[in-house]
Amino acid sequence: MGVCQLIEKSIVNIGIIGLGVVGRGVLKILSDNKELILKRTGKEVVIKKAAARTEKTLLSTGLPKEMLTINPLEVVEDKDIDIVIELIGGYNPAKEFIEKALKNKKSVVTANKEVIAKSGYELLKIANENNVYLRFEASAVGGVPIIASLYRSLTSYDINRLVGIINGTTNYILTDMYESGTSFENSLKEAQRKGYAESDPTKDIEGYDAAYKVTILASLAFGARIDINDVYREGITNIDPIDIKYADELNYRIKLLAIASRKEDNIDVRVHPMLVPKSHLLANVEGVYNAVFTEGEGYGKLLFSGPGAGSLPAASMVVSDLVDIARLHGRPYIEDLSYNHFKNLSILNIENTINPYYLRIRVNDRPGVLALIANSFAVHKVSFASVIQKEAFQDEVDVVFLTHETEEYRIRGALSSIEKYPEIKGISAFIRVLKE
Amino acid sequence: MGVCQLIEKSIVNIGIIGLGVVGRGVLKILSDNKELILKRTGKEVVIKKAAARTEKTLLSTGLPKEMLTINPLEVVEDKDIDIVIELIGGYNPAKEFIEKALKNKKSVVTANKEVIAKSGYELLKIANENNVYLRFEASAVGGVPIIASLYRSLTSYDINRLVGIINGTTNYILTDMYESGTSFENSLKEAQRKGYAESDPTKDIEGYDAAYKVTILASLAFGARIDINDVYREGITNIDPIDIKYADELNYRIKLLAIASRKEDNIDVRVHPMLVPKSHLLANVEGVYNAVFTEGEGYGKLLFSGPGAGSLPAASMVVSDLVDIARLHGRPYIEDLSYNHFKNLSILNIENTINPYYLRIRVNDRPGVLALIANSFAVHKVSFASVIQKEAFQDEVDVVFLTHETEEYRIRGALSSIEKYPEIKGISAFIRVLKE
Repeated sequence: MGVCQLIEKSIVNIGIIGLGVVGRGVLKILSDNKELILKRTGKEVVIKKAAARTEKTLLSTGLPKEMLTINPLEVVEDKDIDIVIELIGGYNPAKEFIEKALKNKKSVVTANKEVIAKSGYELLKIANENNVYLRFEASAVGGVPIIASLYRSLTSYDINRLVGIINGTTNYILTDMYESGTSFENSLKEAQRKGYAESDPTKDIEGYDAAYKVTILASLAFGARIDINDVYREGITNIDPIDIKYADELNYRIKLLAIASRKEDNIDVRVHPMLVPKSHLLANVEGVYNAVFTEGEGYGKLLFSGPGAGSLPAASMVVSDLVDIARLHGRPYIEDLSYNHFKNLSILNIENTINPYYLRIRVNDRPGVLALIANSFAVHKVSFASVIQKEAFQDEVDVVFLTHETEEYRIRGALSSIEKYPEIKGISAFIRVLKE
Repeated sequence: MGVCQLIEKSIVNIGIIGLGVVGRGVLKILSDNKELILKRTGKEVVIKKAAARTEKTLLSTGLPKEMLTINPLEVVEDKDIDIVIELIGGYNPAKEFIEKALKNKKSVVTANKEVIAKSGYELLKIANENNVYLRFEASAVGGVPIIASLYRSLTSYDINRLVGIINGTTNYILTDMYESGTSFENSLKEAQRKGYAESDPTKDIEGYDAAYKVTILASLAFGARIDINDVYREGITNIDPIDIKYADELNYRIKLLAIASRKEDNIDVRVHPMLVPKSHLLANVEGVYNAVFTEGEGYGKLLFSGPGAGSLPAASMVVSDLVDIARLHGRPYIEDLSYNHFKNLSILNIENTINPYYLRIRVNDRPGVLALIANSFAVHKVSFASVIQKEAFQDEVDVVFLTHETEEYRIRGALSSIEKYPEIKGISAFIRVLKE
C-alpha cells in the first residue's frame, strides 16, 4: 500500500460549458445537494466558471457576473479549474474543447454522444496520457447508469448482445401513434409541443442519436473500436399508422430498437424500427422511457431501464460522474486500462443480418397474385410464418406477410423481383421483427 | 496529482473460503477468463488457497492438493494472500473470517447477505481503518449490479423508494403456483427438484433472505444504519392457490415484495407478499428473475433486473468486485467515505404503514352478514374499493374485499372486532396491495 504522504485538496473547482436543459439541471443539483456531495467526495465542489452562447442564458443562471463568459476557451484554459463539464452537444467545437481541457490536465465529464461515439477512443487515450479522467455516463441512456455497469460491474465476462430502446423522442412518438392512432407528423408535433422533440428533430427521428448511443454501448460491451459510419441506421419517419394497427392485431408493437450482437470477431450493430412481441418487456417500455437488455455468458439477461430524457435524469448522471472524479481528485491517477484492449471489429453488412420480416404489399385484387409472390419468395428461399389479406381499396388490396428468419439479401432479392410484376402496386412496408 | 513513484505488484494472490455453487462458479470464471481479467486489472489474479468444509469438495475442484485446506483460518492468515473471497454463507463463523481478513490487511469480497445486513457498517469501518476494501455486490440481487449503481452512480440525489422482487426461490414458487394452480407445498417440491430451493428452504420461503437483502439495499440507498430486527418480514407459506386465482380475476399477481421508502428521517422497510397490478412491470418478473425499482428526486424511476439465482450470475458479480479491487491493489488506498454519514433512522412499525388490502373472509351465507362487516369497517374508518362474493361451501361463503389505502392498525382493529361475531368463520386471507 501507499507509502507516500498525499496532500489532499479540499476544494475541487469546476467549469461548465453549455447551459441548456442539462446544464441548468447540473447547476440546480450542485446547489441543492452541496452537503450530500461533500459527504460523498470529501471535497467541496465549487463552480468557478460557466460558459454559454448568449449573455441572456448566462444571466438567467443567477450566477455572479464575473463567473460567466461566452468564450468556452476561458473555461478550458483556466488554470484553477480541475474538472470541465461539457454540455454543448454536437461534434464541433465540443470535441476541440474536450481535447484542450484534457491536454490542460483537466478531467472532463460530458454528455456528448456524438463526440464519444466518433472520438471516444482517441479522447480516452489523451485522458490517460495526461493522467486525468474522462467520463460520459449521460451520453448513452439518459438517466440510466448503464455505462458504469458495463465498464465497472460487467467485467468478468464479455457481453454478447445488447438490445434496447435508447431514444426517448422516437419512443414517445411511437407510443403516441399507438395510443391515438394518429400519423407520424401529428405525433411529432405533439412531442414538440411537450418539449420531447426539438424544433429540428432530425437527429432523433432519423435514428442518428440512437446510432451514436449504440456505438458507445457496443464499444464498451464488446471492447471494440467501432466506426459509426458502418452502423446501419433507419429512422421512424416512414412508419405508417396502418402498420402499427396491423402489428397490434398480430400481437406486436413497433419500436425503434438499437441492436448490437457479437459472434467472435464479427459484430452486428444497427438501429431501425422493429416489430416487438407484446410479451417482450421492451414492448411495454412506453413514452420517453428507455431500456436496455444485455446478455452475456454467465450474466444471463440483465435489464436496465429508466427515463431517457429530461433535465434532471441526465444531469444527475453528469453529477454522478463528477462525484466520482472529485472523490479521486488529488490522488495518484488510476489508469484506465480497458480501452487499451479495444479491438477493431468488423460490422456485419445489413444485407447479411438475419431477421424475420413484416411486409405489407399492395397488390391487384385478382386470382393468382398471391401465387406470384409465393413463387418469388420460394425462389429466394424465404418462407412465410403467416399471410393475411387486409382491407381492399377499390380493386387493390394490402397483403401482410410475416416471414421466418432469413438473411436480408434474400428478402431484398425476392422483393425486387416481385416489384417488376404489374400486379404488384408497391412494397408499402418492410419492417424487421425481433425474435422473442 | 501524485508526485510519488508507485511500485505496482503485477500479481494479486487470492484465497477462497467456501466452494459451494457460487464458489465453484468463481473458480470457473477465474480459469476461463484469465486473459480478460488481466486486461482489465493489469494484474495476474492467482488463486493461492481454497478452503471448504470437506476433503471431497476440495478435491472436486481439481486444484493442486497443496492449495487446499479444510481450515478457513489458513486462508485468512496466509501472509501472501491479498484478497479473500468469502462464500460460506450464514453469520457464524463467516463474520469472524471476514473481520480477521480485514484486520490482517486483506481486502474481502463476499456474497454474504446475512453478515452484511447485520454487520456491514461495522465491517466497512474495519476495512477503512485497515486501508483495505470490502465489497459485496453479490449479496443483494444475485447477478444484478445494483449495489455498485446505488453506491457509485446514484450519488447526486438521495433515493426515496425501492421496491422489488429480490428472492428467486419464492418468485419461482409463486410463478409456478400461478401457472399450474397447484399448492405452495407442491411448488416448493418442484423448486427443490430443480435446484431453486434448498432442502431446508426456511430462509427463502419465510422471507429472511429478502429481509437481509432489502436491509442492505435500503442502507445504501438511504445512507442509513438499519437494525434488521426492526424490518417487518412475512413469507409465502400461507399463500393459498385460491387467492392467486381471485387476484388473477381482479387483474393482480401475488408476489413477495421488498419495500423500502423514506420520508425525512422515517423509513419504512419490509418484506411480505403483495397483490401487484398486472400492468406493473414487477407483475411480469417471472421465475427466478429478480427486479428492483428505485425512485429518487431527479432520477425518476429506474429498473434493474436480472437473474436472482444461479451459480454464474452471482459468481460473475463476485468476480467483478474482485476485478475492481485487483485494479486498485498496490495503489494508495481510496477511503470509502459514504458509510461515515450513515444515520440511524427509525423504521415505521408495520401497524403504521399505509396500504390497500386484499381480504378474504369466510362467512355464514346469511342475510345481514355483509352489513355486519361493513359496519365494523366503517367504525374503523376503512373503506372498500370492491366487494365480491365468491364460491359457497355448504352454508358458508368466501367474500373478497379490496380496501382503499388505510393505516394497517385500522384494518387490524376492524378485523379483530369482526372475528368475534359467530357469523364470521375466519379471516382466510390478509394480503397487502401495491398501489400502482
